[in-house]
Amino acid sequence: MGKNFDEEQKMSGKIDVEVRIGNRVLTISGYESEEYLQKVATYINKKFAEYADDDGFRKLNSDMQNMLLEINIADDYFKAKKQISLLEEKVKEKEKEIYDLKHDLTNYQVRLANHGKK
Amino acid sequence: MGKNFDEEQKMSGKIDVEVRIGNRVLTISGYESEEYLQKVATYINKKFAEYADDDGFRKLNSDMQNMLLEINIADDYFKAKKQISLLEEKVKEKEKEIYDLKHDLTNYQVRLANHGKK
Repeated sequence: MGKNFDEEQKMSGKIDVEVRIGNRVLTISGYESEEYLQKVATYINKKFAEYADDDGFRKLNSDMQNMLLEINIADDYFKAKKQISLLEEKVKEKEKEIYDLKHDLTNYQVRLANHGKK
Repeated sequence: MGKNFDEEQKMSGKIDVEVRIGNRVLTISGYESEEYLQKVATYINKKFAEYADDDGFRKLNSDMQNMLLEINIADDYFKAKKQISLLEEKVKEKEKEIYDLKHDLTNYQVRLANHGKK
């Protein structure tokens, strides 16, 4: 059966990865690489470690600790999304500048060509 | 005492915001606006709702469900970070293009000035 299961996985392209966060272990079946999922787990474990010295955090039950962690990670995500917006704005500004410079360059080329005719 | 507490908050700039995720309610004291924290909570609640129909998810205990959510949110964060890298790369490319265009433009200006002298 193990073999059939492996073949099924191969066909779907899915892989099983065992991920450990704190004392929890979860097997995730998906298309992400082992390396990527371990990087994600390391990041979450680091978050828990940062909270470990916080008395307020330790007083919370596990469910509330998880809730705080979820908010904290989502906060990183929203801050990253904000940065994406700013960078997209910056790309647009640069593209506008390139457009204007190309326009100026064409003008000079035309003027230089006209000078040549004189 | 309530008043003292309020004044303490005012001095530190911190505010208390009550956030609800699923059936959990947590009061977060920090510098983020109420509006921002509710946006973050809405995003997490939506994630839980997406999993609600998943049999595999429902079979997990609450701690494992939270672990999966944390990985899922962190995945969004890492994908956003990847996008930031790509956009930063794009900004650099555009800046290089602007540098080259400005260089070309200066060349044309010099050539045109020299033509004028003839």
